[in-house]
Amino acid sequence: MPFPRRRIRSALGRASDRRVEGEPEGRPRSSEVVRGFRFGTGRERTRKVKAIECRASERDGTVQIRWDRSERSSAEFPFVWLRDNCLCPSCFVPSAQARLVLMESLDPDVRPRSVHLDGEGERLEIAWEDGHRSSYPAWWLEERDFAPESREARLRERTNDKEPWGREARVPAYGYADVMERDDVLERWLLDLDTLGVALVVDAPRRTGECAALAERIAFLTRTNYGREFTVRAKADPSNAAYTGAKLGLHLDLPYMSHMPGVQFLHCIAAAEEGGKSQLCDGFYVAETLKERDPDSYRILTELPVDYLDVGSDHVPYHLVHRAPIIQSVSIPLSFSSRKEAALSTSPHRDRLDEKGKPYRMNYNDQVRDSCFNVPLESVKPLYVALKAFNTLAYDNCIGFYLKPGDVMTFDNRRVLHGREAYEVKKSGERHLEGGYVDWDYIYSRIRLLRTINFPLSS
Amino acid sequence: MPFPRRRIRSALGRASDRRVEGEPEGRPRSSEVVRGFRFGTGRERTRKVKAIECRASERDGTVQIRWDRSERSSAEFPFVWLRDNCLCPSCFVPSAQARLVLMESLDPDVRPRSVHLDGEGERLEIAWEDGHRSSYPAWWLEERDFAPESREARLRERTNDKEPWGREARVPAYGYADVMERDDVLERWLLDLDTLGVALVVDAPRRTGECAALAERIAFLTRTNYGREFTVRAKADPSNAAYTGAKLGLHLDLPYMSHMPGVQFLHCIAAAEEGGKSQLCDGFYVAETLKERDPDSYRILTELPVDYLDVGSDHVPYHLVHRAPIIQSVSIPLSFSSRKEAALSTSPHRDRLDEKGKPYRMNYNDQVRDSCFNVPLESVKPLYVALKAFNTLAYDNCIGFYLKPGDVMTFDNRRVLHGREAYEVKKSGERHLEGGYVDWDYIYSRIRLLRTINFPLSS
Repeated sequence: MPFPRRRIRSALGRASDRRVEGEPEGRPRSSEVVRGFRFGTGRERTRKVKAIECRASERDGTVQIRWDRSERSSAEFPFVWLRDNCLCPSCFVPSAQARLVLMESLDPDVRPRSVHLDGEGERLEIAWEDGHRSSYPAWWLEERDFAPESREARLRERTNDKEPWGREARVPAYGYADVMERDDVLERWLLDLDTLGVALVVDAPRRTGECAALAERIAFLTRTNYGREFTVRAKADPSNAAYTGAKLGLHLDLPYMSHMPGVQFLHCIAAAEEGGKSQLCDGFYVAETLKERDPDSYRILTELPVDYLDVGSDHVPYHLVHRAPIIQSVSIPLSFSSRKEAALSTSPHRDRLDEKGKPYRMNYNDQVRDSCFNVPLESVKPLYVALKAFNTLAYDNCIGFYLKPGDVMTFDNRRVLHGREAYEVKKSGERHLEGGYVDWDYIYSRIRLLRTINFPLSS
Repeated sequence: MPFPRRRIRSALGRASDRRVEGEPEGRPRSSEVVRGFRFGTGRERTRKVKAIECRASERDGTVQIRWDRSERSSAEFPFVWLRDNCLCPSCFVPSAQARLVLMESLDPDVRPRSVHLDGEGERLEIAWEDGHRSSYPAWWLEERDFAPESREARLRERTNDKEPWGREARVPAYGYADVMERDDVLERWLLDLDTLGVALVVDAPRRTGECAALAERIAFLTRTNYGREFTVRAKADPSNAAYTGAKLGLHLDLPYMSHMPGVQFLHCIAAAEEGGKSQLCDGFYVAETLKERDPDSYRILTELPVDYLDVGSDHVPYHLVHRAPIIQSVSIPLSFSSRKEAALSTSPHRDRLDEKGKPYRMNYNDQVRDSCFNVPLESVKPLYVALKAFNTLAYDNCIGFYLKPGDVMTFDNRRVLHGREAYEVKKSGERHLEGGYVDWDYIYSRIRLLRTINFPLSS
């Protein structure tokens, strides 16, 4: 079976250039530990920044610090923020990295009685007017600098730009054993899922349970009404159109849920003897292209809510309904903080504070689009014209390939549409896929764990 | 222990007045069945509407039907919509309630060659220009009427208005055995969770596993980084501030996730000998009140994104981050369809198309608010002033009570804040709660299943 679009990445790509192998430890050894869990900022911290001067400004309500360096040589920290983030054992639980300071006992006008640096300039010591004492490592403060360029850098390093792709795309492939055993490969796979929205894991064992095994490298599979895993096979009285031999148009799974699962795994255990070719296309790329070429259709698909419905019984009985435009992009008005800063949200897949109104979730699925349309009569034909324009562009820009037994197709289920050609249903050697979903929260969590330098320092 | 705020509902309340007991069947008996799964419209359907006249209008591109009744005596259905929703076995899978018609083969300009009614006026029969034939039950068409009042009625019956509450609220209570055995009680409990955001289930067995048992009446527990269930007990090196004896300020769980679990169950297996009083308040009510009394603070809390962070290891290792305003309300511009109609979204807890910008998710949790603030320096003190104003209003409007062993506190985790007073940690008879989460998608699904008249009709 030909598979010309596969390639193996030779370089680390977007991975961080400093990484510590292995899991961060679950619990710190000492209750005095404040872990340096800050995504990607390990380099500065190892510079061991020192403070050379500090003073409290009553007028500004801040402690001002001068660092032992030329660039960004000073920083300011508000009194109330310092008090709220006291690291002493009665204010903070290090093992939970959680605050015990209660808002009811916090005074927004709190003031220090005295501020000073320890002998080496490694800590800021504060005595508060009520007698409470706080002590902050210099590196900890420096990581929390309020300067606009520092804030922007922190937010930028949390997000990766999406890389849209069309019909010329090649899907990156990773060996199953490498993903299971090597943290650098795991990280590259997950970064591809974030930026490209698709990657293949190849040479997985040809047995059930491998989606769950892959998910456990991240966190766990998300259970849905179709179960923890689902089996794609031609069935009698199928609960889903996927469980037939029919052609499936390009679509995203489970758009009838407000919480649409993030990433989908489809593991080919046995391929069809004939047919069943897989197709994938980048919904974000299609949306962008549609916006340029057919702005009327784009407008309809971003504005007109469409109803999705799934009713039946599989893992549990269900009657799921969701109503949303095909191309979902959200803008939240943000007059208070800068819109540019707000756009740097950490959650590109939901509630994105995105000034450009970029799509963050696609809801295209003709199979489960409700026959009940809650749109005005005169919008019906324009909606079909727009759906057809979208579908045509999607097929014009899709890639097609045959899944081989052992291949696990992994893709962003809110972005990348998948489909398959019809195949002949036979009794022997039937086509058999197993699927599952993993939520984006846990994928980003795993990327952060892989990229975090676990750098315990006693407070 | 006094518990004055509990009351037992005596009436059905908001439940539908027609209901069929028991689960809808998982699979229809015949592949010809088109199930009448339409939330709450059973009454009209049993009227057995008949068509008395039909005609195709080339000019309008619709089939126009006259019904055998005086009110809403006619309806129009677009040609392309009719073709897309053909119910024949090659276009539709009844057991999956899924469409097999592919968008690529659908012609938006499709036209019928002939339309007619069957002898009794119970079906519309269409022969298309390409020779394909479709047949639609009259009741099925009438349920999908495009008239504005019909569309609005369909959307309205899908949503329940929220009922905000303050310190005078009484929490409805349901017996565990009733919830487990009676579908009418199950439905009332879930409707209270939707409208009030809180209810007690009392007299549950004092053992672990009961959150999962309750969840299985709905669907299943949502697994998180803290496990499928989590145990609230004072622990050494706690992974969460809840696992200490400390006072916990009013908060919502897991705001560091883009997908924040929907409803929380907290089952009291053993109470503290002293202390540990529970508190609850309605975040939507607090937000509304704040908007009236302190619009500046309200504006800050709806506009300024706040970072949440949870790092550690429990059920799995995690480094979870989410950035969102404390009071989250979303508006999606909807110039194409009517904004009023768009506001009638089915998913009040996410992506709500709400013209009024009402809150749909609260993110207040001082324990896990990141010490790293990605906001301008000059916004820091105003943010604390606003947080304090919110917190003060929350305590002014909270209800407090002691959980008894066997009580399961159930509440909307995106709306209702919970907290507890400190308690003394003792070795014997220690306080022991078990908790879990259920997603809103599955709660609404269960409500629909309970309220749907399963009314199989052959197509």
